[in-house]
Amino acid sequence: MTEIADRPTVKLRPGKGRRLAEGAPWAFADEIAMDRRTRGLAPGTLVRIVDGDAVLGLAAFNPESKIAARLIDMDAEAVIGEDWFAARLSHALALRERLFDAPFYRLVHAEGDALPGLVIDRFGDAVVIQPNAAWVDRLLPEVEAALVAVTGCTRVVVNATARVRKLEGLDETLEVVRGTIDAPIPVGMNGATYLADLAGGQKTGLFYDQRPNHAFVAGLAGGMRVLDVFTHVGGFALAALAAGASEALAVDSSAPALELAEGGARLSGVSDRFATRRADAFAAMEALVAEGARFDVVVCDPPAFAPSKTALPQGLRAYERLARLGAGLVAPGGWLVLCSCSHAADPESFHRANARGIGRADRNAQLVHSGRAGPDHPSHMALPETSYLKAMVYRLG
Amino acid sequence: MTEIADRPTVKLRPGKGRRLAEGAPWAFADEIAMDRRTRGLAPGTLVRIVDGDAVLGLAAFNPESKIAARLIDMDAEAVIGEDWFAARLSHALALRERLFDAPFYRLVHAEGDALPGLVIDRFGDAVVIQPNAAWVDRLLPEVEAALVAVTGCTRVVVNATARVRKLEGLDETLEVVRGTIDAPIPVGMNGATYLADLAGGQKTGLFYDQRPNHAFVAGLAGGMRVLDVFTHVGGFALAALAAGASEALAVDSSAPALELAEGGARLSGVSDRFATRRADAFAAMEALVAEGARFDVVVCDPPAFAPSKTALPQGLRAYERLARLGAGLVAPGGWLVLCSCSHAADPESFHRANARGIGRADRNAQLVHSGRAGPDHPSHMALPETSYLKAMVYRLG
Repeated sequence: MTEIADRPTVKLRPGKGRRLAEGAPWAFADEIAMDRRTRGLAPGTLVRIVDGDAVLGLAAFNPESKIAARLIDMDAEAVIGEDWFAARLSHALALRERLFDAPFYRLVHAEGDALPGLVIDRFGDAVVIQPNAAWVDRLLPEVEAALVAVTGCTRVVVNATARVRKLEGLDETLEVVRGTIDAPIPVGMNGATYLADLAGGQKTGLFYDQRPNHAFVAGLAGGMRVLDVFTHVGGFALAALAAGASEALAVDSSAPALELAEGGARLSGVSDRFATRRADAFAAMEALVAEGARFDVVVCDPPAFAPSKTALPQGLRAYERLARLGAGLVAPGGWLVLCSCSHAADPESFHRANARGIGRADRNAQLVHSGRAGPDHPSHMALPETSYLKAMVYRLG
Repeated sequence: MTEIADRPTVKLRPGKGRRLAEGAPWAFADEIAMDRRTRGLAPGTLVRIVDGDAVLGLAAFNPESKIAARLIDMDAEAVIGEDWFAARLSHALALRERLFDAPFYRLVHAEGDALPGLVIDRFGDAVVIQPNAAWVDRLLPEVEAALVAVTGCTRVVVNATARVRKLEGLDETLEVVRGTIDAPIPVGMNGATYLADLAGGQKTGLFYDQRPNHAFVAGLAGGMRVLDVFTHVGGFALAALAAGASEALAVDSSAPALELAEGGARLSGVSDRFATRRADAFAAMEALVAEGARFDVVVCDPPAFAPSKTALPQGLRAYERLARLGAGLVAPGGWLVLCSCSHAADPESFHRANARGIGRADRNAQLVHSGRAGPDHPSHMALPETSYLKAMVYRLG
């Protein structure tokens, strides 16, 4: 931890201060007055960020990242230690305790919780920290101490495997740093039980962001046959079965994920209605089309096809293709649920890609519900793009 | 009802067929090859719509509306009578019966249910028809007969008072055309009971579109003091009280609406925690600020401030002002819920106006939830603007 007296000052280039002054949490590399000194700062150094004579606040600086400065406190002299983290974590915890009956949720959603680049998921007495920016890496001991003090959790995993770490010039590790994790953790959501493998490298074990969308689809699915493509640990399928779906087929390319899904199905008491198929999603859907299979509800919840703006056109074509394949598997009057977690695809572009795909399958449809990430994934006021998750529920004719 | 043999043909201007061919449900007046004959067609005439040699389908034509043609069937020779309406109504009913346990919902949401310009709300055995396009006016007897046959409803109100009727050149009426309505109808939603006055001219008596947003806010509001501005018949306030809010103050400028809200509070068993104030919303909020009042949850659910694109800049300023006033009334750590039913204000523009207002009140915030209209308000695939309702839930620091 840098002493405050030693805290360097980083200047914005002339005319580049407006976004930060209006509430943006980031300054990009091309907005910073870069010289040999700033370029030489260690990734994650805490700095005073100034625009001419005006001190804008305290930022975490990384000369190796396109997001060069992340504003973390309006007070440029703030002491960033365990107490500071404890205050921010307590504020984040209060939100989740208001929202949920049990301690299973995303506890910290980075910028949305005023902790840029830090993601924390909670699974009862276990927490998974994702340090996705260099400054968090440097202050991990303080984060961990504050987290244990605020939540009382006894088990801590540091999962430093997210793709975004490469953009920050950081390496990959996955480590249980406190307590032991010797088995997947059962997590109750929407009446089903899922298994989250915190130490096995399946990201942070479970995607809490889809909770309200699982609930919406489960509410429709009573008595229905469900196909859940990209099921991961059983996401939509187990929620639908718990709500009375007649059967569900879950497809994923990951054998460990499907094993967890099967374990979740047993714990949920729905194994007799649950089947899995390990396959590439597109190949599996084409095979099901060839078999003449039909389902009342088809869900596609893929990984990000458009992880960046340059990948957007290609990503939208992939979404369109998925929509076309999915629509061909929906029985008359049935449902197609299409999800995207691509930041670069705004809801309207994603919907239009879906509409093209459904049209190419010669089906008509209505858009019944447009869901976002659950409320344990709040957005920063100046970053509407952090509402990355879209779950579109179409009813087909 | 026009005989099919007499059905006129209306042509699109050269090069104007692409939108309809791609699935749009409307052709605008400037896309139609207008001549004396087309201009002389009675509003609501059913026509074949063609693009060169290609027959696009059957449209309802109105030379007096900017939306000159509304595509109502891909089959240009379709017979539009009671059976045709019964088929569309049955499809719409099947969706609501899947979504809801009790027959209280928007049964037909116009273009979103393939019935352009027709809105129908259901209140148990009573239905309110809003004919918002000329063709529906002409075919009202067929709509009514089909509606009674499909739903078994015994009471029918025709509420032809919507502002949009002026754009179609239609007059205003409100009439009970079947059965009698001699008292407001109790409607259960989210654990509260509301009173819907179907014959009293308060639009269609109740806004079903906010149902999921009422539920979200009610889920937060346990033990909290709630201010509900533009409460209408008690919308957010009664749901919050039913979910355990400690008290609610409901503001509206309409005395009949507040009487219904008070009646709903009695039926919900929450009168002892419910107070009303009849006042202009802005004046009431300024007065509360002056009194130093603070609430844990402040809700503003105004009528459309931006009913058209030309009114958008002025409307966004009004939303910003409401956000500033509302934020000033929120206790530390409390909630601000800001709604907009303006088609012209997209979610991001609305959010930015809110963010400016909250900033001007010197409050920081996170966006926790971004809600839309409930699933009984489906969208047409080619009309994303029909997702008109936004309910943004902010948590203030």
